[in-house]
Amino acid sequence: MPSKQEHARGLPRNRLETLADGVFAIVMTLLVLDLRVPETIGTGGLAGDLAALWPRFATYVITFIVLGIYWFAHHQVFHFVARVDRTLVWLNILFFMGVGLTPFAASLLGSYPNEIVALAFYGILLALLPLLGYGVWWYMTGDRGLVDQVLDPVLVKKVRLWFLGGPAVVPLAISLSFVNTFLSLLVYIILPAVYVFFNPVDRYLGELRKEGTG
Amino acid sequence: MPSKQEHARGLPRNRLETLADGVFAIVMTLLVLDLRVPETIGTGGLAGDLAALWPRFATYVITFIVLGIYWFAHHQVFHFVARVDRTLVWLNILFFMGVGLTPFAASLLGSYPNEIVALAFYGILLALLPLLGYGVWWYMTGDRGLVDQVLDPVLVKKVRLWFLGGPAVVPLAISLSFVNTFLSLLVYIILPAVYVFFNPVDRYLGELRKEGTG
Amino acid sequence: MPSKQEHARGLPRNRLETLADGVFAIVMTLLVLDLRVPETIGTGGLAGDLAALWPRFATYVITFIVLGIYWFAHHQVFHFVARVDRTLVWLNILFFMGVGLTPFAASLLGSYPNEIVALAFYGILLALLPLLGYGVWWYMTGDRGLVDQVLDPVLVKKVRLWFLGGPAVVPLAISLSFVNTFLSLLVYIILPAVYVFFNPVDRYLGELRKEGTG
Amino acid sequence: MPSKQEHARGLPRNRLETLADGVFAIVMTLLVLDLRVPETIGTGGLAGDLAALWPRFATYVITFIVLGIYWFAHHQVFHFVARVDRTLVWLNILFFMGVGLTPFAASLLGSYPNEIVALAFYGILLALLPLLGYGVWWYMTGDRGLVDQVLDPVLVKKVRLWFLGGPAVVPLAISLSFVNTFLSLLVYIILPAVYVFFNPVDRYLGELRKEGTG
Repeated sequence: MPSKQEHARGLPRNRLETLADGVFAIVMTLLVLDLRVPETIGTGGLAGDLAALWPRFATYVITFIVLGIYWFAHHQVFHFVARVDRTLVWLNILFFMGVGLTPFAASLLGSYPNEIVALAFYGILLALLPLLGYGVWWYMTGDRGLVDQVLDPVLVKKVRLWFLGGPAVVPLAISLSFVNTFLSLLVYIILPAVYVFFNPVDRYLGELRKEGTG
Repeated sequence: MPSKQEHARGLPRNRLETLADGVFAIVMTLLVLDLRVPETIGTGGLAGDLAALWPRFATYVITFIVLGIYWFAHHQVFHFVARVDRTLVWLNILFFMGVGLTPFAASLLGSYPNEIVALAFYGILLALLPLLGYGVWWYMTGDRGLVDQVLDPVLVKKVRLWFLGGPAVVPLAISLSFVNTFLSLLVYIILPAVYVFFNPVDRYLGELRKEGTG
Repeated sequence: MPSKQEHARGLPRNRLETLADGVFAIVMTLLVLDLRVPETIGTGGLAGDLAALWPRFATYVITFIVLGIYWFAHHQVFHFVARVDRTLVWLNILFFMGVGLTPFAASLLGSYPNEIVALAFYGILLALLPLLGYGVWWYMTGDRGLVDQVLDPVLVKKVRLWFLGGPAVVPLAISLSFVNTFLSLLVYIILPAVYVFFNPVDRYLGELRKEGTG
Repeated sequence: MPSKQEHARGLPRNRLETLADGVFAIVMTLLVLDLRVPETIGTGGLAGDLAALWPRFATYVITFIVLGIYWFAHHQVFHFVARVDRTLVWLNILFFMGVGLTPFAASLLGSYPNEIVALAFYGILLALLPLLGYGVWWYMTGDRGLVDQVLDPVLVKKVRLWFLGGPAVVPLAISLSFVNTFLSLLVYIILPAVYVFFNPVDRYLGELRKEGTG
């Protein structure tokens, strides 16, 4: 049975992680509902019907990767969390509220890939998620006893900049959509790819490992 | 391998927590299914179509926050649980049954935001959830060896009152809907906000922390 | 890092439990999708439309309780599991396959509550689930080193009989549906209620507790 | 609170496991959405309507087993993982992206069981999943400190071959569909059955157990 001292340490992070993993798993999986099997076979055969679904397949792949980025970011960031408090929980729920909108934004873009409004809605969500992530990181790394005391201040700054990269690029993508919707889509494809390959936490943990074994 | 003694301690709480986290994650995420992408673009353009969805967006945000409140309440309350028994499990399943109805109530309100019946249904669910939560808290804090022995009786009473606040206000909201449906909606918006900011368990754990480090 | 010895102990049970909790949480929550918000308001008003949904509400409640029974049974039974092997995993997946059909059976019954075929389909699933549960219990309590060695043989027998109760009663319910569909529904309502209140594992753990503290 | 040393060990595997379990639980459960309750009862009665759903029931069963195979393979393979890094996370997310497409492939096959395109799409996914699984296994068993150091090189090779079996057989199944679509379906039924019964990790752990207790 937990003692009074244990309670004094505050709420553990595990249930917020389980909720996060659940939300991401469901949102990732709901994306498939947008790939609808044709009710009847068209003149081009079933192969033609499937080929006509290509914008939805493309949105599926891009959005899955975007969700993967934010799930992994959540995993990495929460690796440093020692306990959660009310504000941290609510910043997370706000973040999940944004994540929960992804299937709608993806469905909108998959249905109307050439509409500026659909591109802008998708882009705004793509900018909102890292902003909400920035909020979580900013709050938890403040002097509130929520994280590991040995957290490197250089890492704290790097992750902040990492979260601000997306919101900085999205206005460009939305502007481009007025010139050419394909250029705008291209930014949405390149941006996640950059985030997959540039990951400050992974680099930091790798360096810690080298020190530890070196 | 667990010994006979370990079994004697009773069922651990972890699987009920995983089930709760799963139910909440899914219910939160199912809310997005109510935001339907327009089949065809109307005369006002896609922007006009999206603007016409505003009652559904509003219901999405309110209901997500309401679900966040009850998920967090469950997390906090179960933080004190040492073991579960049959009655506690079934009180929880009843609670999940209420939680599971939320997407329907939200969809009803998002579809018919000016209908008294839709407002009343949403309100009744909003009153039912804390009543079921009250049942869980009342049972687990009784003299049944289910919680930590050092649980503060003042906290027990405060959380009871906290759970009864919602059911006390809802009849007012439903009555107001006969005068003006917007006034009723306003209560549904303010009530969750109050619950987010007034949280007796968070305050209690904060005070325990101060004592522990002071 | 786990040692060779640790691997030799076999696969732990935790991931099968997470999968089970996930499947149950989703199936429970998918039930709500069958409560469809009316597209237009009928002549009886929205209240009349909701009242017309009563068979779906009734099926929601009954099926939620049935799923609660089997989730709890899984929780209790796996409390005694020390490690899992291939056969135990596949018996569980078969069980989940049955659980996964519940929303379809519930939807069928909610749509056609007076059809013998719908009642029979629901009943067959209600008989199949405990049979699959019996298979899991029978295999894991055999001499395979999968459970705690101190497991009481009286409990093993009692739980077997408990699982066979449902399949024994269902043929009666299906037969009754040829006389009167309501009588058949009544059996489906009473049967889960009996299972909620009669629970051999809960009683066993309660007695162990008394011994331990007495 | 975790120390700097603990971080140096790298990210634990538990959250990737929770995400995997969530994705599999949801995908398994979404399969039921393809079994649609008939809107109106046809001339053959409700029994006739249900009988007409047989290709969807068959696809439900086959796909559930296929998903069971890959869930179990993930469980077994991750049993040996000591920590995860960025590449391993992304190989997993790619794998989940394939898993997430299963309900679409199943729905396509259930709707058009005699169409070569539907059979080929299902087959390609059936070949893609083990290839992605092979990628995960290949990367984690490389000299990167991600797994237990005592991992048997014979097991490493056997599991590689196991993952390559599916992709080797699928081209045959797709070729057969040009002769007779039923022959092709037969391969899709037999292939999973072979995978259920032939499981190198289960055999390996069984032998370790014998050594340990012998």
